[in-house]
Amino acid sequence: MPAAGRDTGMFIQEENMCEANVYLVKEGKEELVLEDISILRPEKDELYLQNIFGEQKRIKARIKEMNLIDHRILLEEG
Amino acid sequence: MPAAGRDTGMFIQEENMCEANVYLVKEGKEELVLEDISILRPEKDELYLQNIFGEQKRIKARIKEMNLIDHRILLEEG
Repeated sequence: MPAAGRDTGMFIQEENMCEANVYLVKEGKEELVLEDISILRPEKDELYLQNIFGEQKRIKARIKEMNLIDHRILLEEG
Repeated sequence: MPAAGRDTGMFIQEENMCEANVYLVKEGKEELVLEDISILRPEKDELYLQNIFGEQKRIKARIKEMNLIDHRILLEEG
């Protein structure tokens, strides 16, 4: 969850604190897919994920639940 | 985006800053569906939304794009 720019002031902190970690729930277990995502976009049968470091990932899954206060997005195989 | 507990300290601020506003995109226009949501959960052909004030809403729509840094979740009619 710590993000670039954390110590450069309140404004930057606010901008970067809202990323979430994405987990794939598989047989009751959570596998981390990508940390600190800022963008999630469904594309056909995939989800496109992008994090605050510019990393991108596509995964064949669907959203099971998002909890933004807990910074968690759970996926299940689609 | 302002949330309960905002002035009670840094920890509370972090906990409450990550909600997002949900908009339905309809004919190119964005209609606000619910502000400050913390939970989003797909349920059959609907999305269940809950915000930090405990308000709940169900809407027949699908996710078009989420941007957590901008605190925006865009939906389209499903």
